[in-house]
Amino acid sequence: MQEEIAVVGAGVTKFGKRFDVSYRELMAEAASEAINSMDRPITPNQIQGLYVAASIPELTVDQAHVANLAAQELGLEPEIIARVEMACSSGSTAIRNAWAAIKSGLIDTALVVGLEKMYANTQAANHGLCIVPDVTYEATNGITAYSGFALIAQEHMKLYGTTRDQLSSVSVKNHSNGAKNPKAQFFEKGEITLEEAKSARMVSDPLNLYDCSPITDGGAAVILTRGSLTTKFSEQPVWIKGSGQSVEPSLGVSNMKSLTEWTALKRAAQKAYQTSGISPSDIDVAEVHDCFTIAEIIEYEDLGFTAKGTGGKFIEDGESALSGSLPVNTSGGLKAKGHPIGATGVAQVVEITEQLQGKSGKRQVDGANIGLTHNLSGFATHHVVHILSNEEAK
Amino acid sequence: MQEEIAVVGAGVTKFGKRFDVSYRELMAEAASEAINSMDRPITPNQIQGLYVAASIPELTVDQAHVANLAAQELGLEPEIIARVEMACSSGSTAIRNAWAAIKSGLIDTALVVGLEKMYANTQAANHGLCIVPDVTYEATNGITAYSGFALIAQEHMKLYGTTRDQLSSVSVKNHSNGAKNPKAQFFEKGEITLEEAKSARMVSDPLNLYDCSPITDGGAAVILTRGSLTTKFSEQPVWIKGSGQSVEPSLGVSNMKSLTEWTALKRAAQKAYQTSGISPSDIDVAEVHDCFTIAEIIEYEDLGFTAKGTGGKFIEDGESALSGSLPVNTSGGLKAKGHPIGATGVAQVVEITEQLQGKSGKRQVDGANIGLTHNLSGFATHHVVHILSNEEAK
Repeated sequence: MQEEIAVVGAGVTKFGKRFDVSYRELMAEAASEAINSMDRPITPNQIQGLYVAASIPELTVDQAHVANLAAQELGLEPEIIARVEMACSSGSTAIRNAWAAIKSGLIDTALVVGLEKMYANTQAANHGLCIVPDVTYEATNGITAYSGFALIAQEHMKLYGTTRDQLSSVSVKNHSNGAKNPKAQFFEKGEITLEEAKSARMVSDPLNLYDCSPITDGGAAVILTRGSLTTKFSEQPVWIKGSGQSVEPSLGVSNMKSLTEWTALKRAAQKAYQTSGISPSDIDVAEVHDCFTIAEIIEYEDLGFTAKGTGGKFIEDGESALSGSLPVNTSGGLKAKGHPIGATGVAQVVEITEQLQGKSGKRQVDGANIGLTHNLSGFATHHVVHILSNEEAK
Repeated sequence: MQEEIAVVGAGVTKFGKRFDVSYRELMAEAASEAINSMDRPITPNQIQGLYVAASIPELTVDQAHVANLAAQELGLEPEIIARVEMACSSGSTAIRNAWAAIKSGLIDTALVVGLEKMYANTQAANHGLCIVPDVTYEATNGITAYSGFALIAQEHMKLYGTTRDQLSSVSVKNHSNGAKNPKAQFFEKGEITLEEAKSARMVSDPLNLYDCSPITDGGAAVILTRGSLTTKFSEQPVWIKGSGQSVEPSLGVSNMKSLTEWTALKRAAQKAYQTSGISPSDIDVAEVHDCFTIAEIIEYEDLGFTAKGTGGKFIEDGESALSGSLPVNTSGGLKAKGHPIGATGVAQVVEITEQLQGKSGKRQVDGANIGLTHNLSGFATHHVVHILSNEEAK
């Protein structure tokens, strides 16, 4: 059997409005969080790979070439280094490339840092979000992330009877989880009621303010190494059992095969399940991409947690609650933990790593041994799924 | 012995001012050039990896998430997809990640497309170049690519007696080569004289206009596959024998260990030579990163073509001329072929591939069997070196 790759360090910064730090300080803070989480120290020369996931630093902090900046700020001379941009799924894509670089034999150990500092320039951040869709054919005609996912929500409600209350229930659950995560952007805000969530001001019908994830400053980092080296760094390595990625040949909503059944997500999930030998019913805890509440509902379905069209019922029945059969977004998710674009896919792996190590405090899922992360970009056209376990051999 | 990876398709678009095509059309043109170069056809589902090297599309064409755009425009559903940004070395970094993904066993075949459309918005392009250095500590104090490399040139001239004529000779040689490459930006311009090169208007002392590479629109693409599959696609695969990458923990000039001896380049080259079992004296033809003429001179030295301090003499003696002992930048280099940032590292591999296949027309190097590419970013802080051969086993 081929040697497996494991997470041996994982950490996130406080998410929110981080006016207290510069972009480079946030980068160093994220890396420090991961390094400090390790059971045994790592030296700079042991970090042979450096991947930086960042979506729009050119716009928000007026700095390009940020992977080289990371090498400077962290004092590293890696043998492979890259900045990866895949909009909201930059983080998971960077992890996948680091994982491949280790599997290839090129390097043994890699640090993946994801970050975004969106409050540094909110106008630039919003513009950055607007140019993720197809600018020429869609964005300029009014299709933003908000209106695009609103179309998706409308269609799902029409086809499957998904309700206003079900959408808002996702938000209530994620804020409830975020209220138990001191690193979450809305930790201090605390829980919200269904009534509050339902009555928030409309953004793009049917999506209201509480259906939308915020903009956020934050960073996250993981350290990956090959199986034979895990004991050097960690007493509780978390293994990447499966990884899947897929994309639709569509940048905008107009070329999507279906608004409500995400074929690329199904392919990515299928690959992750297949390569890990793990099935949806084995998953104990998941972090999924709730950029909008409707996204989380569709993900329950296309990740195979529940049948197509029953995602609304899945949240309504409390299945994905912290006390449910499959707790989802225990971190608070993008909605309540926050969504610093480049960091999100990395932060999801951090949350699952901590859950599988039993380190999640008030939001710990008892007996969590197998976890899943799902990160998307565009109008749900590109997806990455990772499956992790705290046991090397399943 | 581990299975080797080969280039089985390679092509570049016409470089220059490409007002005739949109960004996405340029992307498709680059991919088509690579696909059309193949001896046997490839189908979309055989392209399992898609890497897009792009430096500043967010600024020049107001479009992010360009790897997903590529999937749409090329009609692909790859299993691994990423946009890689490493400023001027985005292209070679993308190739290195595609190479690692194939070596890892994750995929068999990948398409790497590099492109930039800088004339789409020259003000944005120039701004993009200005934010590659450390914006906070250097760019805002006047350190641009031009003034940074001017410092490097001044120091090299002072330490080693490198002359004005030697700098200009690099430009004359590269324009002479470019005049033989119909795809080059300055093909139509033809050759230039040493007198012209020396007397051009000053940009940043001692670098004048002819010491500086231009901004460019252009794309390049390569298709990589594993050894056992090369015969499916090509009768003349070109093998990636070695690959090295390294970075200095410095984003700007102020943290560089030496302005004139690039430690990260030496490490990257050393790794490429070591992994390939090939030494500098085996190289028949090379494409190196002549963003400025001084860069090519230092690269002769740090790539091991000639001793430290003798790079000026190397060009003066005609060693790197088309008729010399080691022809360098037969394509015209960044100076005369042009420098569409994201495309450059890919285009270098295209040129070497064509040279090793005997397809380079008037600029063909007789008996070229082993070639090298060198691509850098920042103030020569980050480097990627590839060594290619037309023979599978050396």
